[in-house]
This record gives sequence, structure tokens and C-alpha cells, in this order.
Amino acid sequence: MIIVMERNAAQEDSRMVGEKLQEKGFQLHVSRGVERTIIGAIGERTEAIMEMFETLPGVEKVVPIVQPFKLASREFKEETTVVKVKDTLVGDGNLQVIAGPCAIEGRDKFLEVAWAVKEAGATMLRGGAFKPRTSPYSFQGLEKEGLEILSEAGRETGLPVVTEIMDPRIIDLVAEHADLLQVGARNMQNFFLLRELGKVNKPILLKRGPSATIEEWIMAAEYIISSGNEQVIMCERGIRTFENYTRNTLDLSTVPIIKQLTHLPIIVDPSHGTGKWKLVEPMAMAAVAAGCDGVMVEVHQNPSEALSDGPQSLTPDNFRTLMGKVKKLSGVLKG
Amino acid sequence: MIIVMERNAAQEDSRMVGEKLQEKGFQLHVSRGVERTIIGAIGERTEAIMEMFETLPGVEKVVPIVQPFKLASREFKEETTVVKVKDTLVGDGNLQVIAGPCAIEGRDKFLEVAWAVKEAGATMLRGGAFKPRTSPYSFQGLEKEGLEILSEAGRETGLPVVTEIMDPRIIDLVAEHADLLQVGARNMQNFFLLRELGKVNKPILLKRGPSATIEEWIMAAEYIISSGNEQVIMCERGIRTFENYTRNTLDLSTVPIIKQLTHLPIIVDPSHGTGKWKLVEPMAMAAVAAGCDGVMVEVHQNPSEALSDGPQSLTPDNFRTLMGKVKKLSGVLKG
Amino acid sequence: MIIVMERNAAQEDSRMVGEKLQEKGFQLHVSRGVERTIIGAIGERTEAIMEMFETLPGVEKVVPIVQPFKLASREFKEETTVVKVKDTLVGDGNLQVIAGPCAIEGRDKFLEVAWAVKEAGATMLRGGAFKPRTSPYSFQGLEKEGLEILSEAGRETGLPVVTEIMDPRIIDLVAEHADLLQVGARNMQNFFLLRELGKVNKPILLKRGPSATIEEWIMAAEYIISSGNEQVIMCERGIRTFENYTRNTLDLSTVPIIKQLTHLPIIVDPSHGTGKWKLVEPMAMAAVAAGCDGVMVEVHQNPSEALSDGPQSLTPDNFRTLMGKVKKLSGVLKG
Amino acid sequence: MIIVMERNAAQEDSRMVGEKLQEKGFQLHVSRGVERTIIGAIGERTEAIMEMFETLPGVEKVVPIVQPFKLASREFKEETTVVKVKDTLVGDGNLQVIAGPCAIEGRDKFLEVAWAVKEAGATMLRGGAFKPRTSPYSFQGLEKEGLEILSEAGRETGLPVVTEIMDPRIIDLVAEHADLLQVGARNMQNFFLLRELGKVNKPILLKRGPSATIEEWIMAAEYIISSGNEQVIMCERGIRTFENYTRNTLDLSTVPIIKQLTHLPIIVDPSHGTGKWKLVEPMAMAAVAAGCDGVMVEVHQNPSEALSDGPQSLTPDNFRTLMGKVKKLSGVLKG
Repeated sequence: MIIVMERNAAQEDSRMVGEKLQEKGFQLHVSRGVERTIIGAIGERTEAIMEMFETLPGVEKVVPIVQPFKLASREFKEETTVVKVKDTLVGDGNLQVIAGPCAIEGRDKFLEVAWAVKEAGATMLRGGAFKPRTSPYSFQGLEKEGLEILSEAGRETGLPVVTEIMDPRIIDLVAEHADLLQVGARNMQNFFLLRELGKVNKPILLKRGPSATIEEWIMAAEYIISSGNEQVIMCERGIRTFENYTRNTLDLSTVPIIKQLTHLPIIVDPSHGTGKWKLVEPMAMAAVAAGCDGVMVEVHQNPSEALSDGPQSLTPDNFRTLMGKVKKLSGVLKG
Repeated sequence: MIIVMERNAAQEDSRMVGEKLQEKGFQLHVSRGVERTIIGAIGERTEAIMEMFETLPGVEKVVPIVQPFKLASREFKEETTVVKVKDTLVGDGNLQVIAGPCAIEGRDKFLEVAWAVKEAGATMLRGGAFKPRTSPYSFQGLEKEGLEILSEAGRETGLPVVTEIMDPRIIDLVAEHADLLQVGARNMQNFFLLRELGKVNKPILLKRGPSATIEEWIMAAEYIISSGNEQVIMCERGIRTFENYTRNTLDLSTVPIIKQLTHLPIIVDPSHGTGKWKLVEPMAMAAVAAGCDGVMVEVHQNPSEALSDGPQSLTPDNFRTLMGKVKKLSGVLKG
Repeated sequence: MIIVMERNAAQEDSRMVGEKLQEKGFQLHVSRGVERTIIGAIGERTEAIMEMFETLPGVEKVVPIVQPFKLASREFKEETTVVKVKDTLVGDGNLQVIAGPCAIEGRDKFLEVAWAVKEAGATMLRGGAFKPRTSPYSFQGLEKEGLEILSEAGRETGLPVVTEIMDPRIIDLVAEHADLLQVGARNMQNFFLLRELGKVNKPILLKRGPSATIEEWIMAAEYIISSGNEQVIMCERGIRTFENYTRNTLDLSTVPIIKQLTHLPIIVDPSHGTGKWKLVEPMAMAAVAAGCDGVMVEVHQNPSEALSDGPQSLTPDNFRTLMGKVKKLSGVLKG
Repeated sequence: MIIVMERNAAQEDSRMVGEKLQEKGFQLHVSRGVERTIIGAIGERTEAIMEMFETLPGVEKVVPIVQPFKLASREFKEETTVVKVKDTLVGDGNLQVIAGPCAIEGRDKFLEVAWAVKEAGATMLRGGAFKPRTSPYSFQGLEKEGLEILSEAGRETGLPVVTEIMDPRIIDLVAEHADLLQVGARNMQNFFLLRELGKVNKPILLKRGPSATIEEWIMAAEYIISSGNEQVIMCERGIRTFENYTRNTLDLSTVPIIKQLTHLPIIVDPSHGTGKWKLVEPMAMAAVAAGCDGVMVEVHQNPSEALSDGPQSLTPDNFRTLMGKVKKLSGVLKG
């Protein structure tokens, strides 16, 4: 990190900063300009260290130089991580498509849509059992019963299944039924949950928080990895901006960025990323062309009867069309 | 809610929408214009209901008309709620000042700062035992030991104590030691936690999430109230915007807005709201002039040695100056 | 528009609102619920009309129902507009690629890069003569001399040329030298300029403002069209969000949205949209897959010597690679 | 500025960066760590210089260290600038209140409201003659006639008058009629206009752009000052964020920040800053408590008949109440 001293900082102040830096194990490089002294400090910086120096007398600001993540970084591990979800590989160069309804609403309906997405070419099945909803008066999911339906559908269709986990108290229950555990956008900085997921022997799908910077998102992956679980898939699902024609602003630049900064695979969710089914297909195409490892799409037999996220769900027919286009595109890009 | 049909929607589509609305118990008012049919639907709308109608054939959009919160609203309860924290009243017209360090770092240091803020005029004491940190490598708090130090300091000084609760598994533990339980900004939409806090017999301090709309924030309060706990204090602490000179953008308009829309008290945290100690005093003054019920300020003996949030902490001396100004201002405004 | 009366609004208030609506030529549809009266008003709403009703006694809010743009809308003109830039068609289903340096820095260098992009396959040439720069101390462009170089390069290479126009006083001068006049992001709501451009007999490239909603952006096009010039091409170039790893957040959902809401063609600028040359190629690919009519890319012989926007410029070699990929992708998508 | 080399940058790359820096007149301080070389460069950095170095081979990023503004900075001129508007001083410690309608709608109405605000205690009069409106179909102002009415009202009441200038072609005309020229939020980065205003012998009121960072806003002032006009008053009027309950998010932290970073006075516009008249008074109070030099408030005889910005306008009665409170507060703070 770089410590910029105030314009008229006393020599004594610079000396004190230097001493403290050495105490903390930093190597020093001091540049004394006409107007200002700048101190380069080489060593392991943390938030706490930066904050400490920012408040010393005479310090104007502290500028971080290197990224705060380690285990997740491409610098730490050059080789791309391939995450294994049951027998499906994410990050090996093939496109994976996760499909299914936002919420599991009942056994028969879910099995029906599970078969429909499988036949259309989906390679994983999604379905929510515990639903985070803005309003306490909205449908909150079938909970335990939903998990059982999900795992049954996985067994029947042979598709790996993914569902959201929100509460550290039920990790074991969810891990028993699902092949891939999803951390939802609202829980991306639920650090207690992240640490527990680091101890689980299942891969994790880590959604970006709607107001999380790319650095914070990677730091959330760092929590999981540093707690012992390296099987992390990143999922871009849009950020909150001033634009409200779409539900979120899907930030597709994260696809190449995550691949440049980390060794983790990344998939894209154009359903939440736009909130409008008419935008799902063009955004899925764009995500694939940007180089993602997979897409996650909401599909519902009858979106107008869905108990959650209807407006962004495709019908099985629309999904089949999308699969055709996306597969063709993916093939051309690989060729 | 209002259902706007597409410009060339078939009559059949409008009829179908009308039937479904009646099925769901809505009263109908249909306006047929030259270009477009608009259907007013009077009844209880939820997210799920709105989403369902948004996907029916021929529907262009669904516009919510009334606010989704009930129990928190000023319409539901006209009288202002006064929240009792031990023997201190929040919302009765007197200004409360919560002060203390971001994190509890040790018994002796915490007792020292506790006495210092009490002598300067603080009316409640804050201190973090479990700290949510962006990096897994930062100090995460003294945890259980921190809670014990906090409650000891509360007993010694006679000040009510407030601390953050992040994990539903330790609510009982925290409630045993603290007088006011704080939901941090990152957990504002941790709905499992909110529901559990609705069952606790302690008041809740609900921080606004950095990307939460005012409506979502009030809905988080609605979760707590509808689960049984009406003792909720709102806390504005800044939102995330494109501006990065300050850590957050403190949105003081929420002070009059929360008072207009709800019956709940609201306090303001200018320390997190700006991230720079030089801005804390002017923003605290502004918050009081806007009409808030209290302010929450970080104070540390030696901000440059703080293990968390040093740059936004006041020294006890600066805090004493702030208290003098804030009290004088509050007195004038009441007079 | 819909007028929502306050919960306890007097009957007299509703009557007054109704009368004023009729005065202004609106048709009325009144829905009287148990708690609230809602008035549907069918007619031509403008900002001024909405604001007037919002302040009448007893009115809680006014909700717009139909979009405020007319001439730009797909409802008004179903057929897609094809814009002719010299002899090149934008919006006819073929992909156009506009390339060149951010600023024109000298005659020889510009001609060199002009030939380089032409040989690589670009179909239009860009170059800035008047540069809007955040700092008054930065290079502001070669101005008139730059325009002459630009038009010479256009004549030599046969490529249509595009440059930015910022000042209504020099429209004639710029129109004399350029084939396509670009409104920069910072001037998207410079309404005086927009109106003057409506009187020009040259096509306009309208960049989205960094904080403009999609609706405001279309309204800027409406200014130009309603002043007499229908030859408008929209250009997405990223919006300002809290994320600062990229210079802007490129919002590719605008590609399908502009095509759904308007009849205008849309191109995408991944250079400004990301600010990092390593992201230009994947984002250009994504834009094409999303269905845009063209891309605009910054190319410079030697980005590290560029006087403006070096970090987001491709070298001619990188541009040639991008052209190869983008053409192949575009061919597959059409096929 | 600091140049951070890539982790595995060749020695040759660092050498080349060093040479180029010396060519451009920078002093060098090189820190060679185990993993990375960091080069401190002391000298005059501009956008163009930073961009050039960002693209050199082996460079990871360039970090600016000192602020890019000079003439506007408190470091350059320690003494606070007091701006003289006719005979009224802005920035001398007294609170100025600018009041009047958004748009001038006619002679008699404007004179009436001018006298009303004067009697209530306003110290300057505002009124728009040229109105920037999102829609080409909205009222655009009385233009030249409006200016004449404005200056007449100024002469009659003795109040200095302020109005917006949007077009460089009519600066002389506007300067002839107004005492203070306002740059509107949408033109804050209309650099042609800013430069022309630097040559005018009238003070400038510079509104913050809705998506402008504080640094960009100060750079806009720098444009005016560096072109020759030091009489600049900053005006905070809210920024665009995801929150849409208010029209903008009023960022009151800019009051102390502008005072810390620059020597310029700052006033606050709570009418545009919130868009709701019920929030104007509390936000005006907050702005004064934060230490601003003045407030600007929209007042209209009959907001529901206003042709522009009705919902955020106070009636003369409400304005009188606000003046009473604001004056009392200002007196207490000075005392």
C-alpha cells in the first residue's frame, strides 16, 4: 500500500508512520517530493492495517495497491478450476445450462417441468425450497418438503440439482438433498453462512450481491475457500443501478473480469439479471458470447400462475428455442 | 393495483384478466380508452399477485398503487411508537446519543471508553462483539467474551448497551447480554434472522442496507413486527452510490420520510454514513436538524490503533465537542 | 395516467381533480374503493400536467401509464428505421463496425490508422476533433484542423466518417466535414444542441448519458426527431454505477430493449463501456450476440502514446483479431 | 502518481516506464518488492499522462495521488472566497436564501411571487427563462421575455436575480439581465459553456451534475476559474441513485467536503434535491446545520398550477414558515 502524507505534514509524523510500518513488518520506500512525502509499504495489508494508518497524524490517505484476495486469485493458482457437480463439470470449456422454476410449488408440477427442461437440453435442474421474499406476506417456499421433491426430481431425471441455502442452521439438511448449494444475492456477505459453507463437501454457487463490487464478490469466495471449500462457481445476476426498466442491470463485463482475476468458473443468470422474459434469450446469447461457463434460466410451465418470479420465467417452449440457439452459438465459439 | 393492457390486446385477454382478478377477490374498474384498456383492481396485492398478472397474455404492465407495508405504516397506527431500551425512551422527542467503538477490543480499554462517552453525555453504549468484515483475514471480534465485556460495561456505567446480531443461532446469547439488538446493514434482508428477532423480547435497531430502497427497508421492519416484535428503531447509515469520496452517501431525507410513512423512530449513524471522522460532526448536526430521534457515533480512545473502522471514529475529546453542539441544537429545535 | 387520492381525501378534493382533468381534455374513470379513490385519466399527459396534478389537495401520487415518447416508438412506426450514413446502411441487418482513435492527433498518424482499420474490415471511421475532457488541463483536440484531417481521411479511404459535436455554434462546420454527427454522453440532455441537430441534414449518433435512464435517452432522440431529423442511431456506452473496476457498466440489455420500444437502430461502444482494452473483445462479441446493429471501437497505433483514452484502445493487430471473430459471429447469427 | 507494475513484469518494462517518466519531467522513486515493482512519480499528472502510462507494457495500474484541481483547491488558496452578487455576499458567514418559482410564467405572477419571497425574507430571487425539460413537449420557458421580467422584478424588489444559462450563444443576453448565472445540473460538463462563462464578468452558480463525483464537480469549477472567472458558488442539488422515492438523493456531506477541499462557498437546493415539498423544510434545516452558505428554494403562488416543478415548490406561506426556522437556526449556529 501507499501512504500519502498531508501537504504540510511534520517530519515527525512521517517518521512515526515509518516506525509503525516497520513494527507491522512492512518494507519501506520513502519518496520526499517538494510538496508531499509518499511512503510505499510492501507487505501484507489488511483492512485493519489500512484503517490504522489512515488515522495517524499527518496521513492524507492510504491507497491499496494489490488486490486483497489470495486463494481465489489467478496469481495464486494459474490453472482454471473445474468444479464437479455430481458428474457434471463446470469450467471445462463446455457450456452448462441450469434450468427450472424459481420456487418448487408441488411434486407433480415440478417433475413435469424437470422432464421438460431435461428434454430441451438443460444439464442441471434448479428449484427453490426456501425463498427469500421482500414481503413477509409473500409465498416463502415449501421448505423441507420442497427439498425432498427436488432430490426426487434429480434422481428421476438424472440431472444434478441446485437450490438456495440461507440459514446456517439447515446446511446439513440442504446438503443432503442438493448437489450444488446456492448462496443468494442477499446473503453474499452473510459471513457466518459463508464460513460454514467452507466446511461442506458440496460445491457452492455464489451469486453476486446486487450492490457488491467485483472485489467484494471475490472476497466472499475467498471466505468459502479459506474455510476449506475450493469448489466455488461465481454467478453474475445483475446489480442495482438507477435504471429501473429492468429489475437489475446485468453486468456481463464480469465474465471476462472474473476469468482474468480468478481461477474460478462463472455462470450468468439472465432471468434475475433482467426481470423480463423477453430479454432472457438475447442476454443469454450475449453471456455465452462473452465467454461464460454456463447460464441459469428460470422456466415455468405457466409463468402467469407462478408463485414467484413469473415475469422473468420462460415457458418450456421458449426455453427449447433458447437452448437451440445457445448450443449452436457455443459450438461455433469453441470451433 | 392498475393493470395496463397492451395497445392491441385482444378483448378476450382483458376478459381473462378481469376474471382472474375476481377469482383472487379484487374489485374491478375497467377504463376502455381508444388505444388501451386499463383495469383498476382494488384488493390485497402481494408480490406474487403482481407477478402473476404481469405474465398474463395481453398485459403490458402492472402498477402498484398502495404501499406494501401495513403494520409499520402511519396509516395503520397514527400514534408515534416510543421504543423503550432498558429505561431510555427512543422517539419521545428527546435526542438519544449512542456512542462507543466499532469493535470491543479488550475489557480495560472498553470500560475506559464507556466511561468517557458517558461523561461526555452519551445515553447508550455501543460495541461490536461479532464483526462482519469484507475480508476473512480481518479481525472478526471477541465474540462471546466481547458480549460479557459489553454487559459488564453496561452495568458499571448504567448505560443501555447495543450490539450487532448476525446469526440466528446465537440470538439467545446476544439477547442475554444486550439491551438493544442491532441488525447490520448487510443482514437487512436476512429474512430468517428478521423472523427470529420478531420473537425476541428486546428492541431491535434495524440498519438500512447499503442498496435497500426505503420501501424494502420498511418491509424488513414489517417482517419483525409481523412476527411479533413491535419495538423497532430504524437507523439510516448511508447508501452505496457512484460517489466514492465518502464510504457511503448518507441519505438524510429518510429522516422526514420514515416519520411520514411509518410510526417508528429513526436514528442516524454519520460514522458509517461518511467513513471520515472530519464529516461526523457536521452530518450529526444535519441529522438532528432534520428531526431524527438520535445519532449513533463511533468513539475510540485512539482511532489509529482501532482494530476496526478507525478512520471514522472520533476521539473522546472530539465526541465531547460534538455532544455540546448537538445538545444545544436539539434544545433550540425543541424550544 | 392514474391519480391516486390520499386515504382520507375529502370528496370535494376528488371532485376538483376530476374537474381539472376534464378541463385539460382527459377522459375520466373513477374507482372508489373502501379506503381510497383512484382516478384513471385518458389523454395526453406531459411532465407539466403530471406535476400539476401531483400538487392538488388530496392527491397522493400520479402514476404515468404510457411511455412519454411518440415519434421514436415502435407503436408509432412499426417498421425498423434504416439510417443511411453516406452509402452505408445502419439497421438493415448487417453489422457495421466504426473504428478509429479517440482523438485525431495529426494528419499522418490519422491517415495511417484510417487505412489500418479499413484494411481490417471497419466500415466507418471515427476520430475526435473537439474533445470533452474532465480537466481543463487535458488535450482538448485539434479542433478545426482535426475536422479537415478527418474528412480527408474519409475521402482517401472511402469510409464514412463520424465525429462528436458539442457546441451548437459549430454545427455547420462539423456537418460540412462529417457524415455522421455524434452527440456525446455528456451532452445527451443538452436540449439546445439536440433541437439544432433536428434541423441538420445529416444522421445523428446519440450516445446514452452515463446516468440517463432508457426513457430519458429515448426522449433525447424524440427531441431530435420532433425537430425534423429522423435519422437517429442510438449508442449504448455504459452507465455510471457503484462498480469502479470498469470505467462504466455496459448495459447490454438496452440492445433488445431499444429494439422492442423504438424503431431505431442501436450500436454498442465497448471501449468507453469498459475503459479497459482487455474487455473490449469479449464485450463486442456479447453486443453482437445480443443483436446490435454495429459496434464502435477505439483503435490507436500505439495506445501508450495516445493523447486521449489510451487504456481502452486496441492496437490495429488486436482490432484485426476482433474483426475476424465478430464477422464470423455475425454471419452465424444471420444464417 | 504511482505506477504499479504487473507481478511478473520484465525488468525491461520497468526501465522503459522509468525512462518515459523522466522524459515527461517526473521525479522517480522505485520500490522493488519480492513480487512487484512500484514506481512513485512526482510531477504534474493529467488524465492524458495517466492514460499513457496505463497502457505501457508491464503496467498493471496507475494510481493518482494528488487531486487534479489546483485553482479551486484550499491548498492553493487558503482564504475562503466570498462571492459578490450585486451587493449581496455569499460565503461571508451569513446565510443567503434564494427563492422563486422554477419557471417564469408571466409578468404579473412573477412580480407577485417576487414581492412575496422578499417580504418573507429571501435575499435573492430566482426564476427560469430557458428551461431544460426531459420532454420536447413540455413548456420550455418564456425565453427572452422571461429574462426581461426577471430583471424588472430584480429592479423593483431590489433583490439580486439568478437564472439558468444553457447555450453559449446567449451568454451576453443572459448576463445583461441576471446578477448570478446558473449552470444547471445537466450542463455541468458542457465544457464549451464553462469556458465561455470563465470570460464573463458575473458570478456563476455551478450546480452539481446528477451523476457527477465531487472531484468532477470541482473540476468543472476549475474550468471556469482557469478561464478567468473566480466568482464561483457551488450548489448541491442531489445525485441520482437507485432510490426513487425521492427525485434525487441530496448529498449533504458535500457541504463540509467542499469547504475542506476548496475555498469556494456552497449552497444547497433541497427542492430539486428531494422533489417533494414536504421534505424541503427538514432538508433546508439539515443543510444549514451542516454549515452551508445558503439555500435555494422553489416557491410558487399556486404549486398545482405551476408549469414546471410544481410538486417540489412551497407556497409563500410555507416559505415564510421555513424562513423563520432557518433564520433562527442560522442565528444559533453563528452565536
